[in-house]
Amino acid sequence: MYEPAPTYAVTIRLRYPNIAGVAERITDSIGQAGGSIGGVDIVKVGDGMVSRDYTVSAKDVEHGTEIVDQLRQLDDVSVVNVSDRVFLMHLGGKIEVLPTKPVKTRDDLSMAYTPGVARVCRSIADDPDASFSLTIRQNTVAVISDGSAVLGLGNIGPRAAMPVMEGKAMLFKEFAGVDAFPICLDTQDTEKVIEAVRHLAPTFGGINLEDISAPRCIEIEERLDAELEIPVFHDDQHGTAIVVLAGLQNALKRVGKSIAKARIVINGAGSAGTAIVKMLNLAGAGEVIVCDREGAIVPADGLDKVKRWVVDNTNPNRVTGKLGEVIAGADVFIGVSAANVLTVQDIQAMADQPIVFALANPDPEIDPRLAAPHVRIMATGRSDFPNQINNVLCFPGLFRGVLKVRASTINNQMKLAAAQAIAGVIPEQDILDDYIIPSVFDRRVARAVSDAVSTAAIESGVARRTSKQPYRIH
Amino acid sequence: MYEPAPTYAVTIRLRYPNIAGVAERITDSIGQAGGSIGGVDIVKVGDGMVSRDYTVSAKDVEHGTEIVDQLRQLDDVSVVNVSDRVFLMHLGGKIEVLPTKPVKTRDDLSMAYTPGVARVCRSIADDPDASFSLTIRQNTVAVISDGSAVLGLGNIGPRAAMPVMEGKAMLFKEFAGVDAFPICLDTQDTEKVIEAVRHLAPTFGGINLEDISAPRCIEIEERLDAELEIPVFHDDQHGTAIVVLAGLQNALKRVGKSIAKARIVINGAGSAGTAIVKMLNLAGAGEVIVCDREGAIVPADGLDKVKRWVVDNTNPNRVTGKLGEVIAGADVFIGVSAANVLTVQDIQAMADQPIVFALANPDPEIDPRLAAPHVRIMATGRSDFPNQINNVLCFPGLFRGVLKVRASTINNQMKLAAAQAIAGVIPEQDILDDYIIPSVFDRRVARAVSDAVSTAAIESGVARRTSKQPYRIH
Repeated sequence: MYEPAPTYAVTIRLRYPNIAGVAERITDSIGQAGGSIGGVDIVKVGDGMVSRDYTVSAKDVEHGTEIVDQLRQLDDVSVVNVSDRVFLMHLGGKIEVLPTKPVKTRDDLSMAYTPGVARVCRSIADDPDASFSLTIRQNTVAVISDGSAVLGLGNIGPRAAMPVMEGKAMLFKEFAGVDAFPICLDTQDTEKVIEAVRHLAPTFGGINLEDISAPRCIEIEERLDAELEIPVFHDDQHGTAIVVLAGLQNALKRVGKSIAKARIVINGAGSAGTAIVKMLNLAGAGEVIVCDREGAIVPADGLDKVKRWVVDNTNPNRVTGKLGEVIAGADVFIGVSAANVLTVQDIQAMADQPIVFALANPDPEIDPRLAAPHVRIMATGRSDFPNQINNVLCFPGLFRGVLKVRASTINNQMKLAAAQAIAGVIPEQDILDDYIIPSVFDRRVARAVSDAVSTAAIESGVARRTSKQPYRIH
Repeated sequence: MYEPAPTYAVTIRLRYPNIAGVAERITDSIGQAGGSIGGVDIVKVGDGMVSRDYTVSAKDVEHGTEIVDQLRQLDDVSVVNVSDRVFLMHLGGKIEVLPTKPVKTRDDLSMAYTPGVARVCRSIADDPDASFSLTIRQNTVAVISDGSAVLGLGNIGPRAAMPVMEGKAMLFKEFAGVDAFPICLDTQDTEKVIEAVRHLAPTFGGINLEDISAPRCIEIEERLDAELEIPVFHDDQHGTAIVVLAGLQNALKRVGKSIAKARIVINGAGSAGTAIVKMLNLAGAGEVIVCDREGAIVPADGLDKVKRWVVDNTNPNRVTGKLGEVIAGADVFIGVSAANVLTVQDIQAMADQPIVFALANPDPEIDPRLAAPHVRIMATGRSDFPNQINNVLCFPGLFRGVLKVRASTINNQMKLAAAQAIAGVIPEQDILDDYIIPSVFDRRVARAVSDAVSTAAIESGVARRTSKQPYRIH
């Protein structure tokens, strides 16, 4: 039984007389309020007074406030300041832009800027493709959102979406050495988003779309990828689908079932759900049934374009009914829907050794602690339970591989290769019920994904560079 | 008499038998061809052969090619590879994007990304202004071009403009710690450029427009600055004008003339010329005459909007005639036009102690070596002559000051303050004929400009932050 870890901590600056007993009363008060002291730092001592920063872990924001309120009751102790560790980390943003070469001398300046740079510009004007070697395009991806569907928060707009995109840019660099720059667009008009990205494209080697609402995200990605000279990838769709397939392949190995024979029920017909269907079909899945709020999706009048596609590509036996009915006998449940839509009874009705991927964020389709006694293998999107299905396993290595060979698009072969590479990081004999997918901190993952993706790009004919060529004047 | 420094160098990899005399013949050959050896590095030795990289300075690309051709004639010596040092420096681009905080542990990840980041997003959704504290907006500027008027190269398009914008981003960070990201737009339609920048704005704390052709640049800047919540600054106009004013103020001090009484002739009525007029008028200039190819601009039918503005704001005595006539008796010449339009005779016709700013790039309005005997004070845009009028003196510190106080615009008071700060770095008694403007490597400049600009922003009422406020949960 796993307990979620506290993800909230406050730093509380207290000032009190430097006399015996006060520090003990502070410690006791924090303990009694259920807080856990992570660190104590001296800020200032003098005039018989001491100021200290107490970093305290709490269950959540409300609990943090309760702990502070308790401290305010103490005699002789004043609360100078309460800082939220997460907010402190975000002050001023989370990324910076640095020169890769020094500009300390006149010589540096005259090469990096005028007059030397003019020859490099002219060379790109003569051969625009040289921009992929002589500018940041070689290693730089845009992380673009319109803020219309951010995390589980919904349509919070471009300004509020920035911290997520900055976080993503950090991970690109940290996990795969890819430079990524976040751009949040002040429009949610589909045509204007497309036009904005089109206008930005000469700056970048690839576009990672993020947190754009469905079904707009599908059209935006498809049109841009077809039109631009660089690949465009909507991570919420394909990144999720790739990591789900990786986890599922290992889970099926663990229980000794084949994807061709397994009955797989997906709850959620949004962009992630349909992307998962595509990946599963590519991987040879035999029976995939997609449910929305009304139940299994089957031929009907008035279906939208996405649902018509789902009908054409899933549910070969035309099973009907609500999720609770359809799930009976299923080998695999994959939820990309909403909190608490799956019950213990649903799981009990599944085939033996049930595999449940409950990926709704932040609260899964079923509480993993409730599900635990009834499932064989459980995965979620959360970091505080085992088997985390996290896109971080895919996007850094994927774009590393794409940029390495200057792929023009990210095709199915490359997506499948990425999934297999992630799954393959765990040798079959090491797979466990709670270890079907590598840790996000497993440094082997990004390299494996990158190598697999660039090989697949070359083999499928979309790589435009297969070796590094030095620049010469002749 | 100053000779221009060589700004071109090649690295030539040679392979030859490891026997006496060959290395000497190579050295002799390079010397005879007029090259200067900057360094020799061993690459590989074995099988009686040696490979060495010779880094050789040359006058220009053609001269580099001649040197290589000479080497190809030598017996026993093979030219393996010729690399251009400037191109090598540009390989892969010149900037990178790095996390400012570690993402090494699960704890880091859960604060910088999900789930912790969600609280920060929600906080910005509640108060969009918080994006100026909790995202990279606090310290990040976009360097945006459409590639329509790049350096002296003209309309070379967005891909070829990137190396300049990357160089500018390097200088922002190096000189003032400002994070800047280059974006080159794949459109040159004025309305579409405006729309693209508008859509990008939520990501940035300021916009530096660059190398956009006139007169479009004026409209683009004015409309965006009026509309957006962040300042928009076209550096080719105002950055140039600010540094010109700084240099001119010190030059006039040096010759004991006042700006109110000086007769100033500006050649070039483009966007830089008109921006210089604005700055000079703000600084109290009495008589400014602007010439275009036809001569002094005076009231006439059919003048465009820009020239009508020039007529209304210059030439109070309605002086007429070509540049060669108008310049007679002038105290100051400022050229922002084209190479070699100013003659020695023109300078000889000026008032005593002539001040000549010949700023056309890369070749000034008159060769400084020709002008030297006839001018008192000469400035150019070039790094290989004294008194370089270089925008690098302005833009890093200017934006540092703007971001520090979250200025909503960059108004005249701030521009004047920047010019005075640059000029003031040289105490009056230290000003020399060939030292009217500080070196671009003078580290005092950016700080002086930043302080002056943020003070002016506060005093003129456009600062939206006057002190740093820590984020608190209460």
